[in-house]
Order: sequence, then C-alpha cells, then structure tokens
Amino acid sequence: VRALVFDGKLTFRDDYPLPRRNRGEALLRVKIAGICNTDIEILRGYMDFSGVPGHEFVAVVEDADRPELTGKRAVGEINIGCGVCDYCRMGLKNHCKDRSVLGIYQKDGAFAEYLTLPVENLHILPDSITDEEAVFVEPLAAAFEVLEQINIGPAHRVCVLGDGKLGLLVAQVIHSTGCTLKVVGRHEHKLSILRDQGIETSIASDFSEKGFDVVVDCTGTDSGMSTALDIVRPRGTVVLKTTIAHRSQVDMNRIVIDEITLVGSRCGPFLRAIEAIRTGMVRLTPLISARYSIDEGIKAMEHASERGVLKVLMYMSH
Amino acid sequence: VRALVFDGKLTFRDDYPLPRRNRGEALLRVKIAGICNTDIEILRGYMDFSGVPGHEFVAVVEDADRPELTGKRAVGEINIGCGVCDYCRMGLKNHCKDRSVLGIYQKDGAFAEYLTLPVENLHILPDSITDEEAVFVEPLAAAFEVLEQINIGPAHRVCVLGDGKLGLLVAQVIHSTGCTLKVVGRHEHKLSILRDQGIETSIASDFSEKGFDVVVDCTGTDSGMSTALDIVRPRGTVVLKTTIAHRSQVDMNRIVIDEITLVGSRCGPFLRAIEAIRTGMVRLTPLISARYSIDEGIKAMEHASERGVLKVLMYMSH
Repeated sequence: VRALVFDGKLTFRDDYPLPRRNRGEALLRVKIAGICNTDIEILRGYMDFSGVPGHEFVAVVEDADRPELTGKRAVGEINIGCGVCDYCRMGLKNHCKDRSVLGIYQKDGAFAEYLTLPVENLHILPDSITDEEAVFVEPLAAAFEVLEQINIGPAHRVCVLGDGKLGLLVAQVIHSTGCTLKVVGRHEHKLSILRDQGIETSIASDFSEKGFDVVVDCTGTDSGMSTALDIVRPRGTVVLKTTIAHRSQVDMNRIVIDEITLVGSRCGPFLRAIEAIRTGMVRLTPLISARYSIDEGIKAMEHASERGVLKVLMYMSH
Repeated sequence: VRALVFDGKLTFRDDYPLPRRNRGEALLRVKIAGICNTDIEILRGYMDFSGVPGHEFVAVVEDADRPELTGKRAVGEINIGCGVCDYCRMGLKNHCKDRSVLGIYQKDGAFAEYLTLPVENLHILPDSITDEEAVFVEPLAAAFEVLEQINIGPAHRVCVLGDGKLGLLVAQVIHSTGCTLKVVGRHEHKLSILRDQGIETSIASDFSEKGFDVVVDCTGTDSGMSTALDIVRPRGTVVLKTTIAHRSQVDMNRIVIDEITLVGSRCGPFLRAIEAIRTGMVRLTPLISARYSIDEGIKAMEHASERGVLKVLMYMSH
C-alpha cells in the first residue's frame, strides 16, 4: 500500500505491506490525515520513531471482530495501552507505561492507506461532521484536555500564547467558557481567524499585559514558558500544551515565590471534541492551509514545516 | 541595640539604632530567632538584601497603638503588604507586588534585640507553647502551606525529598494526613528523628521507589526537581518548597507527556501551625542543633551553614 515511511529519512513508498489487525483491532482505510507539529518533530528525531508517522486521521472501518462496524466512518484515540496495568484498568491508557502511540511510538500511523487500531480506541462519527472536520478531532480533544484539568469560567482572565494550529484550537475551546481571553501570536493572518469569532488578539511584540489567572503555552518554543511565568499572576496557573526538542532553563524560584501551578497537558477527550464540532462550537476549515495527495506526501510535510502555515491535509485516495 | 547586620558581609554590632515603629506597627523585643536556609542564601547574595536578616522569631510586644498588646508574647507573619492593592484587599498580602519581607526584602529582621512589624501580622501565643517551639511557627506554617494548596489523604502515596529543617517539618505535617509517606534524605541522624514518630525513611542512595501521587521537593538543590519528576506518577503532583540560587535545567517534556502538576509553595498559615504545636501534633525540639547568644551570631551563622546541622537558635538576652 502507499505510505510515507520514516527511518531517519522520509520516503514515499507504494509497496508498504498492508497492516494485519490483531484480535481486538480494526483494520481502517484512511481517508484523510492531518500533519501535526509532532510529526515535524519526529522527522527531527523526536521519540526515535521509525515507521509510518501520522496520528490525526479520519478513516472507514474495513474489518473488525464486530462486523457491524464495517463501513462505518471513524476517528481513533492514539494511545494503545497494555490493557492490564493499573493505569489501563483505571481508564488512563493514555498514561500506560507500556503504551504504544499511533505514528509516534512503536505503532505505524496514519500517513498510509491503511492502519490498525484497537476497536476500543475508535469513535464512530455522526454524518453531520465532514471528513475534513473529523481530522481535527484528535488535536481538538488535546485542546479540550485543558478544561478537563483546570477550572476556567467567566470570572477568569486567560491568555493563550501561540497562534499555531494547537493555539488556535485551544483559544476557541477556552473562549467557549465565557472567560476574558487574550491570544498572543506572531502572525496577523492566523490571529484574524480568531478575531472573526470575537476573540481578542495581540501581536507578541505589542503585548505587555500581565496578571492573568491562567496562561496556556502553545508556542512550542523555549521562550513560551518564561513568557508565561512573566505574565501569570501570583497563585495563577500555567498550562504547558507543547513538547519542545530540548530542555529549558526555567526560573523555578519564580514558581515557588509566586506559588504558581504548572500543569502539563497532552491528549484529551474525543467525545467532547466530536460534540463541539457537531454543535458548531468551533470553526475548523479556516485552519486548513493546504491539501495534498499521499503521493505528494513529502512535499506536504515540507509545506507543513514552513513558517506561518497551519493545517496541511493528506488525502489517501487518488 | 545589638544586631547582626549584612551589607555584603555580616557583622555584629552593639550600636545598631533602635527601630522606630510606624503607625499600625508594634515594637517587639526579640527573645529568640531561628536561622533558616534563606538566611544563609542571603549571605550569598539572594534578594540583594542589606540590613538585619532573620525572619523566624518569638518576641514580646514592647509598644503598640493598642496598649493591651504590651507585654504579650507573639510571633509574626513576615510579608508586609501595601494594604491597598487587589492582593492585600483579598487577604493575599503574601503576594502583594509592593510587599516588604521581614529580614529578606527591604525590612530589618529578627537577628536583633528589637524589630517592628504591623500589628495585623502578629499572633499572640498561648502560654502552653514554649519560646523555643514558637520560633518554629514560621517554618511550620510554610510546611502547612502544602496542605492548603493540594489535597493529601489516606489514599495517597507521598514522598518528601530532603531531610533538612524544612523537610522534617513538611514530613511531620504530611504524616498527619494519614497518607502513606516515605521521606528520602542523606543524613541518618536526621531521618531517625522522623522514624521515632513512625515515619518511614530511606537514605537517598538506597532509594528506588516510583509512582508517588505527590512528591514534595524540600532539597533546596538543583537535582531535587529532576528526582521528583522521576518518581512521581503520571498525572501526579510535584510541590516545590525551596528556592535555589540558580536556574534549573528541567525536562518540561516530561511534565507535558505525563501531565504532571507542579506547585510552587512558600509562606503558610500561622494559626494552623500554632494549633499543631499546641496540640502536640509535631515534635520540634529534636530539630534544634545548637543555641547561641546574638553576641556570637556570626559563629551561629557559620554553624548553621555546616552540612548536617539542623535548626540553630540565637538568644537575644545576655
């Protein structure tokens, strides 16, 4: 089958083996995959991954133990737990020590015509959600994870740092709480997508507000964290949404003296994301920068790596 | 009056001016002061402080606007707010941007025969608390701050890193919650103080447990934080109790991937500390390593800086 394969370097292949599903898994035919910053980090060596990257997708079930699933359109949670450890039994397979992660760690991912995933990871989509919207379920769920972890409401002043793909999703999700929100970024054309939804924005170089109750760092940069500590109020909360390639120098004394709470945040609730798309709570199509066929996948990855580019989609059909 | 004065170097003086109390302040005659690690850091340049250090004390009110306070024995909260900002009005003077801090920032402290402090900062002591116990109210309150910030109960596995003065207080406070507690340190004679109270301890080099719900870093070292991240469970909480002199290299990706919550923790509730001493919940006198007169204050500071030494007290009377 056709696939993008990374083994230190990225290649397009049309002879990659069809994945075999194990018991409990479904075989899925991928319709569209989305390129995430994590995929770009993987090409730079993140997680020492080799295989097929890609973890944002919409697909059709080709085969599963439960035949009624065949032909259904689905998205899938990306963490595959061992199923027997304490975390898996508590429903926290995202934190299983022996987990594999679709397209990120020891499991071939979505930049291919087919993938396999445990049936319990799948969410069947309502017809009212388009394929292109469905590709955003995974990153949108990650955005909703912030609201699962901390309380944000109308009384709070919140700042989102970063106007990348994840920042724009996090901003929309946080805007839904009715809080006072300011989004700080570097790209006027990205911030304008949020302004169209009534969200206040600032260009980073013009921004000098302080005293936020909550700051969400979606910059994916080394400096995001220190900016966040500069602008959060004493006893406020800083949420870290993005991994970065190298270790950061952090002023831990500031965290102690100002009694700041720092919260790491990763994968989130798919059901909440699907419901938000179904009800029109978020606007996703303005975030699509380009569409490619998998045959042009290498070009698609290059495009996605360019500064200022938002979501790049890969279509698996010819 | 007699005082230890720091202006880049520490000197003992017997001609330091008697502090004048402003309106709303009390003049206090110090009986005993305790030496904290922060005082040692101040001698190394922390906070660029100059003046009289010292912020742990028990004293007698000499003079105040309310004459009924005169002669009463008191301890005092160390943060002096501006009184008019939002934080002060919310009762969070500990986080006032314009605060001074007794013996730490722009306010002469307790290594002197007399100090002044706003009356609202004072807590009059019950007779059943001894002077030497009372000197521990301030650091014990800082230990209780952990329980003000996060929920710890019998279902939790908690690890305290560090067997210094603060670590031993934090350990006793956390032990009172009924949680499963392990304290990790480097000094057998310090850990034995805790074992006498039924608290489990480990020497750091023998310690390899992981998966704690909560880890409290009281090491005051650069490596405490990374050890804490190593042994906390996914979605667990790391509490930072100590400031360190320089910035740390921290693996922020770990915080994101494991969705760890990091909580900075500083000054705490005096009333809770006083009550814990009054009811015998904590044992403090085993933590006293040495007693000096203020006349030998420089020697006292040197002693307190030695490895393995716990609380060093300074008596102000001849």
